[in-house]
Amino acid sequence: MKIQLALDRMEIDEAIELTRKVEQSVDWIEVGTSLIKEYGVKSIQEIKQAFPNKPVVADIKTIDNARYEFEMCYQAGADVTTVMGVSPLVTMDVCMEVAKEYNKQVMIDLLNTTEQQKLALQKYKDAIFCVHVSKDQQEQLGSFNTGMGLKNFYTPSMKIAAAGGISLASLETVTAALHPSIVIIGSAITKAENPTEAANQIKQCILQMKVV
Amino acid sequence: MKIQLALDRMEIDEAIELTRKVEQSVDWIEVGTSLIKEYGVKSIQEIKQAFPNKPVVADIKTIDNARYEFEMCYQAGADVTTVMGVSPLVTMDVCMEVAKEYNKQVMIDLLNTTEQQKLALQKYKDAIFCVHVSKDQQEQLGSFNTGMGLKNFYTPSMKIAAAGGISLASLETVTAALHPSIVIIGSAITKAENPTEAANQIKQCILQMKVV
Repeated sequence: MKIQLALDRMEIDEAIELTRKVEQSVDWIEVGTSLIKEYGVKSIQEIKQAFPNKPVVADIKTIDNARYEFEMCYQAGADVTTVMGVSPLVTMDVCMEVAKEYNKQVMIDLLNTTEQQKLALQKYKDAIFCVHVSKDQQEQLGSFNTGMGLKNFYTPSMKIAAAGGISLASLETVTAALHPSIVIIGSAITKAENPTEAANQIKQCILQMKVV
Repeated sequence: MKIQLALDRMEIDEAIELTRKVEQSVDWIEVGTSLIKEYGVKSIQEIKQAFPNKPVVADIKTIDNARYEFEMCYQAGADVTTVMGVSPLVTMDVCMEVAKEYNKQVMIDLLNTTEQQKLALQKYKDAIFCVHVSKDQQEQLGSFNTGMGLKNFYTPSMKIAAAGGISLASLETVTAALHPSIVIIGSAITKAENPTEAANQIKQCILQMKVV
């Protein structure tokens, strides 16, 4: 199970400085939506330049204009780019097409998708599916609960990512519920008093769980 | 009926230069999603600075992290900020709350919302509702058709905006179908050989239709 470090609500320099402190423990680096919307595509460029050997996820949350946004992210150095599962399917088709042309990956964010939409998304077999409790939902409802179920959706070949307020305390619950290949961790690392230590603890916890 | 000029897929300087050519004919200026995602919040700041007397719409397409994104846009000078209707309702609640605090407006983009979602959104009486055929949908299906119906949704007090490939040729059809208070025009002006002339023709067409 990989750790994707989500960088949000900070300046680009801060994001780079923080990532340096934890890079030994994390696998993928996510340029958060807030960085892209606040600073633009240079947030992706600068973070990829600082960490050329780490896969970088551009959390651009595309919902339209897919070719323009996906090409922009991939050209800026992103290895994975996100699209909202609530988008029209034609948008999803374009994302998959651009990813194939660039030999890069798509992450489909399942935030607020209906059961019907989830089933329609199953055909995108090359995508990573991100089960996502949004920041706004967390503030109202708290983080993950085990009832989030993917029961009608999940197939064993599917690559799942989990996001939404995941911490050391909730890591085992989330892993047991969703069997993710990737856990996306933001403030549990970035807002920790000692980010290096927090990231290392999460890494050690994953190693002890012996999940692939 | 107001004209909202949508500025997309260009540099900030180009957007300002183009707007100068048409500002006599347009009412609102939209900083398009592509400008925000490519150049960040400074796209909103620079365009508002260049046109301090025009209402500026930040098409940030919020779907999470509503307070952060809406405050960022309003502080940058936006008068109206957009949120996706497919977002969790808690996100919508936060958008309305922030707008109220700043005494500014919210535009809810109805792109790909289900009938059920549209009905749930009716309670946001202070919002502008944007009926939106996305760029990706236009490439597949063409622009507006009169069957887009808002029949279960529309109430006479509702403020409607219409977006999606609207041109001089389709203006009357869209107006008859949706009775919008605002028509959002992008490439029919920005990609015209003579943008000044194109914007003026659309303005004259609206004046002749004698819609409020």
